[in-house]
Amino acid sequence: MKPHQLIFTALPNIPLVQTGDDLAAIILQGMNDILLEVLPGDVFVIAQKVVSKAEGRMVDLRTVRPSPQALELAQVTGKAPELVQVILNESSSILRQREALLIVEHRLGFICANAGVDRSNVQGDREQYGTWVLMLPEDPDGSAERVRAALQEATGANIGVLIIDSHGRAWRLGTEGVCIGAAGFPTLLDLRGQPDLFGEPLKITQVGLADEIAAGASALMGQAGESRPIIHVRGLPYPLRPGHAAELIRPHEEDLFR
Amino acid sequence: MKPHQLIFTALPNIPLVQTGDDLAAIILQGMNDILLEVLPGDVFVIAQKVVSKAEGRMVDLRTVRPSPQALELAQVTGKAPELVQVILNESSSILRQREALLIVEHRLGFICANAGVDRSNVQGDREQYGTWVLMLPEDPDGSAERVRAALQEATGANIGVLIIDSHGRAWRLGTEGVCIGAAGFPTLLDLRGQPDLFGEPLKITQVGLADEIAAGASALMGQAGESRPIIHVRGLPYPLRPGHAAELIRPHEEDLFR
Repeated sequence: MKPHQLIFTALPNIPLVQTGDDLAAIILQGMNDILLEVLPGDVFVIAQKVVSKAEGRMVDLRTVRPSPQALELAQVTGKAPELVQVILNESSSILRQREALLIVEHRLGFICANAGVDRSNVQGDREQYGTWVLMLPEDPDGSAERVRAALQEATGANIGVLIIDSHGRAWRLGTEGVCIGAAGFPTLLDLRGQPDLFGEPLKITQVGLADEIAAGASALMGQAGESRPIIHVRGLPYPLRPGHAAELIRPHEEDLFR
Repeated sequence: MKPHQLIFTALPNIPLVQTGDDLAAIILQGMNDILLEVLPGDVFVIAQKVVSKAEGRMVDLRTVRPSPQALELAQVTGKAPELVQVILNESSSILRQREALLIVEHRLGFICANAGVDRSNVQGDREQYGTWVLMLPEDPDGSAERVRAALQEATGANIGVLIIDSHGRAWRLGTEGVCIGAAGFPTLLDLRGQPDLFGEPLKITQVGLADEIAAGASALMGQAGESRPIIHVRGLPYPLRPGHAAELIRPHEEDLFR
């Protein structure tokens, strides 16, 4: 008997991604390098950082002019005012502000630290390292959709694409991989009405499946650099369907922990 | 070149677990059934429900006498007073109470709905289905440690064990697999001081690795029953070490979202 398996495979030889790079082509090359054929139902999980770089979502802090609000928040948090300004530009509201901490609602709806704006692993002027920062993709669901369309065009297989970042959580220590963009994937799985083992209704009705896959992929990606930023996933025990990351955002009025 | 892979394999033929069952023996039988040898570095992820059942953590609601506080919370939430009493017995504090919702701090420190007390998939008297409920293991880290010790004794391999449940999250819809018990596993990965690609300090310093593996395993387990409650994991890209689920609990004084 063949057991049920969920297999995460890191694509090898991923180059340092530059603005304008074709992620679908990089994925196809990676699959080719490990002699793996793209099959229907496969999922590709891509680190946000390489998507943002391919899309040129960098900004040079030396070109940023901080507003009075940014100057004030810089005081509170100890962050550079220019960095705070970029974070504010990417945010729709601020949830918590403290020394070394700025938790916001990103304009896309995610609650996260620093609106996902990141200084590490951004190659600017080597003499002035740290002046360039990376923002999340403009529209991660759209980015995922474009990669998916290109891969389906090239292979003919119905596949899913997730773009992931690492977020801190309320109540628990440590970051965890989380889905910020998706295409062709059942991000939120609805099990309402399904029976349990004894025919009674299930307790759990909605599963954050895209976040579960993001987390598993993140464990394989690691954090120390970008050597494994693209993960192939095979064996998802649910059918693919159209689905985007926005489904995972809890509506304000239902959120008891802001 | 052999690619980096993280492989989740569901152990087949897991019986309906009863009080007193030997989970280590069930795991070894499952591995044997798929001709997989236990190797050093392997991790076994076990659904909380089968651990609780093996440990007899069931209670018959007909034997529970609700306190005045339980009666009051039953009014607010619409839950049975006896069920609320069991939840209170398992909790150290209540965070949110509403129609159909009771979010507590479990006595073990997790923030979750209903203190993990569950009615579904508990086989009581078929005529009075729903009168029996299942609680979390008394000491999930200890449960994990016992399974780990037995497996290491039997195989000689240094392995890790995680016990997982599914929790809702602040801000995001859908439940996600989460580590509630661990042994021999780097639950919280500390990357402080590690360099990024360009030799600068990493942004992310602590990773909730046990939750990432819990989430990946949960995606394979599914929710509709207990057909895949035990998952074997191979390929963790970090060394095992002693480590328990308690490491993942954010201390009260650092928690901004209660």
